[in-house]
Amino acid sequence: MFNTLFLPELREMLAAANRVELEEFCQTLNAGRTAEFMEGLFNDEVWEVLQYAPANRRAEIFSYFDHERQLAMVETHDASEVAALVEEMPADDRVDLIQELSAERAQQILPLLPIADRRDIQRLQSYSDGTAGALMTSEVAMLEEHMTVKDALDELGRQSSELETIYYLYVVDENNLLRGIVSTRQLVSSLKHPSLTLGDIMESDVVAVLVSEDQESVAEKVERFNLLAIPVVDSGRQLLGIITHDDVIDVVREELAEDAQRIAAVEPLEDNFLRVGLWTLCWKRGLWLTILFFAALLTAFALRHYETDLERFAWLVWFIPLIISAGGNSGSQSATLVITAMTSGEVRFKDWPLVLRREVIVSLGLGSFLSLIGFSVALFIAPSTNDALVIPFTLLSVIVCGCLCGATLPILFKRLGLDPAMMSNPFVAGIVDILGIVIYINIARLIIR
Amino acid sequence: MFNTLFLPELREMLAAANRVELEEFCQTLNAGRTAEFMEGLFNDEVWEVLQYAPANRRAEIFSYFDHERQLAMVETHDASEVAALVEEMPADDRVDLIQELSAERAQQILPLLPIADRRDIQRLQSYSDGTAGALMTSEVAMLEEHMTVKDALDELGRQSSELETIYYLYVVDENNLLRGIVSTRQLVSSLKHPSLTLGDIMESDVVAVLVSEDQESVAEKVERFNLLAIPVVDSGRQLLGIITHDDVIDVVREELAEDAQRIAAVEPLEDNFLRVGLWTLCWKRGLWLTILFFAALLTAFALRHYETDLERFAWLVWFIPLIISAGGNSGSQSATLVITAMTSGEVRFKDWPLVLRREVIVSLGLGSFLSLIGFSVALFIAPSTNDALVIPFTLLSVIVCGCLCGATLPILFKRLGLDPAMMSNPFVAGIVDILGIVIYINIARLIIR
Repeated sequence: MFNTLFLPELREMLAAANRVELEEFCQTLNAGRTAEFMEGLFNDEVWEVLQYAPANRRAEIFSYFDHERQLAMVETHDASEVAALVEEMPADDRVDLIQELSAERAQQILPLLPIADRRDIQRLQSYSDGTAGALMTSEVAMLEEHMTVKDALDELGRQSSELETIYYLYVVDENNLLRGIVSTRQLVSSLKHPSLTLGDIMESDVVAVLVSEDQESVAEKVERFNLLAIPVVDSGRQLLGIITHDDVIDVVREELAEDAQRIAAVEPLEDNFLRVGLWTLCWKRGLWLTILFFAALLTAFALRHYETDLERFAWLVWFIPLIISAGGNSGSQSATLVITAMTSGEVRFKDWPLVLRREVIVSLGLGSFLSLIGFSVALFIAPSTNDALVIPFTLLSVIVCGCLCGATLPILFKRLGLDPAMMSNPFVAGIVDILGIVIYINIARLIIR
Repeated sequence: MFNTLFLPELREMLAAANRVELEEFCQTLNAGRTAEFMEGLFNDEVWEVLQYAPANRRAEIFSYFDHERQLAMVETHDASEVAALVEEMPADDRVDLIQELSAERAQQILPLLPIADRRDIQRLQSYSDGTAGALMTSEVAMLEEHMTVKDALDELGRQSSELETIYYLYVVDENNLLRGIVSTRQLVSSLKHPSLTLGDIMESDVVAVLVSEDQESVAEKVERFNLLAIPVVDSGRQLLGIITHDDVIDVVREELAEDAQRIAAVEPLEDNFLRVGLWTLCWKRGLWLTILFFAALLTAFALRHYETDLERFAWLVWFIPLIISAGGNSGSQSATLVITAMTSGEVRFKDWPLVLRREVIVSLGLGSFLSLIGFSVALFIAPSTNDALVIPFTLLSVIVCGCLCGATLPILFKRLGLDPAMMSNPFVAGIVDILGIVIYINIARLIIR
């Protein structure tokens, strides 16, 4: 799992406090790779190695350790060393880290930070989770319109170690209102005319997000407009910060994992699966499990309703799980396909007639095939060939119903403004279970005389 | 759905062939927004408007239309106009487009392209889908080690309109072997020492991918090392191209949607849900549906095996769907949670004892709660209080079994090198169904005398 290639050497260097080699180790490799080579060390050893790196490099290497290790190191090591590290971290990452620290620890670290950083942290902490504000970083290149291309490039060089990204410069007026955007690409290709100003080359139609905007909408815009970063503004269009592409990948991952969890009837976990409290886990799963349980209870009453039929034709009972699961499985396939297609934008509301038409054909195909298998088995089990016909007819009807419910409900829920991933499968399962039993017994009554 | 704000004006401008205003429309807005405003126009109208944009701007605006529209426009319009557009498109996008064109159309367009572009297209076409080669673009800034920072910046300015990203420069030797990487950030912050060479400031520990590497591994590296782009090399470390962050987001989306589809027992679709052939759809769904169907058939034989018990205690039959679905639902919750946690890296093989311990606690909690509800209902239906006890004991055992199977199987499959998302739910469902019936009848035999 770990890359153990350098571990013995690293420990030797530490034992000998070999400054030259440790400094070299911290600087020659890619920062991410440096962190990887240290994964097998204990936290104390990692911390010791990190002290040999220059301050901003140290923060960069540190950022590649997983969240738990970062927390553990920051909780336990010397407060002034920790503060020095936190000062160099990207503004958005350090807020996330400080929010997870114990209250006492945060109280030890914060006063050691420069006042500007402290204010910045407080401001970023104030935005609620899941909004653009909570994702953004405040380290953004803000320049003025009258600046020349040449001066802007020099200024960028001076600020570059402070900035999370230098690939867009934002042009603001004296009140920090966002006036335009210049990409470093434009800047670099305008260098042959060094007297041009930012105002001359900026694009004034800037795609931005509101600080209160939902993170999924942020991700959607970044993807649609193919951006490396998106500026965050308040309602008066004052520039507050930016959100960079790496945070967007995280949002996309989170969003799609939530979809998958909702499809399986779990309220999305907001925390690491192994760390989330057991009570929370019980609650997030129990809620839908209980709803599904009540839906399934109805099947018990439905079956009791058909008591006499079931006693007359006892062999029908043996096929109940088969019929219910065939309907449920085909329905959940349809629902999942439609939900993932809606998330990726392939299916919209207006497409429902096409979706339905295709589902009818596919479900007839799948249903006929499975009915054939079901019929062959039923021939051995049912008292007569005529009786055995109940099974294929039921399977076909149940599978068609399952697919149609599975395909329609997500589109319908989306149209009603509800989350299709959350609502669909429990409903599909519930409806298909009951419908399956009703269809089954009624087909049996028709066929068996 | 469409932004119709500008449609009447646009049509007026077209009718009057108002060159000045149309040129302005194509240039003032963000290219993505320009495309958005044209969404309500017919393809012919869009194409006409595009002709008023400068060549590279035209390609940029064109890139924001959805894939279907792009294809339709390229299939039908004047071949030389199309070739002029294709020439300006990013190397990776135009390959994707040309691969989907009809063979005759491709044969009309390709000869109109400069020989260098034609060769480039052929080369990129040769890499198989799902590999780094198929994702990469060949437009990458390759510079030599001895170049000074100042010269490199000038060169970048000259090339910038040709390059997909200017944010990393790759340093190569005379055989195009990858020697190092310089970020534009480093370049810009080194401008105060303009005589430094790229060799002085480059990082020689470059994170790269092999051209044959799987796209998921590419995404994993870009995310882990937090890159804007990753270089693609052959086995001799010759630089072939780069993959940019926007392609990585697409890979992440694709990968997670595939996970969700596999969890619902559908072989992932490789194409748009509405466009994939009905035969393919039947096959991708039918495969797992049939496997699940055979698993469910076993329940029919299990129930037949318990024929005499079921006839003696007919009321037991009514609870069969409830018990099976309680086990199945809790199992698929566990499986989905573990699968999504493994995909995001939160759970690894070594965590299995912790996962199991937590699942035991959660399933006992959930099981007890649902058993209580089940017991209250059974009291009304079962002949005696003693008999009714069968239901809660069965529910508790089945839910615990379901959760443990659901949590263990994905970890086990992953360990065996199989795809946990694909294997888990069908197996969980199959095992839990059969086990549920066996547990149910045996508990009933124990309790009912």
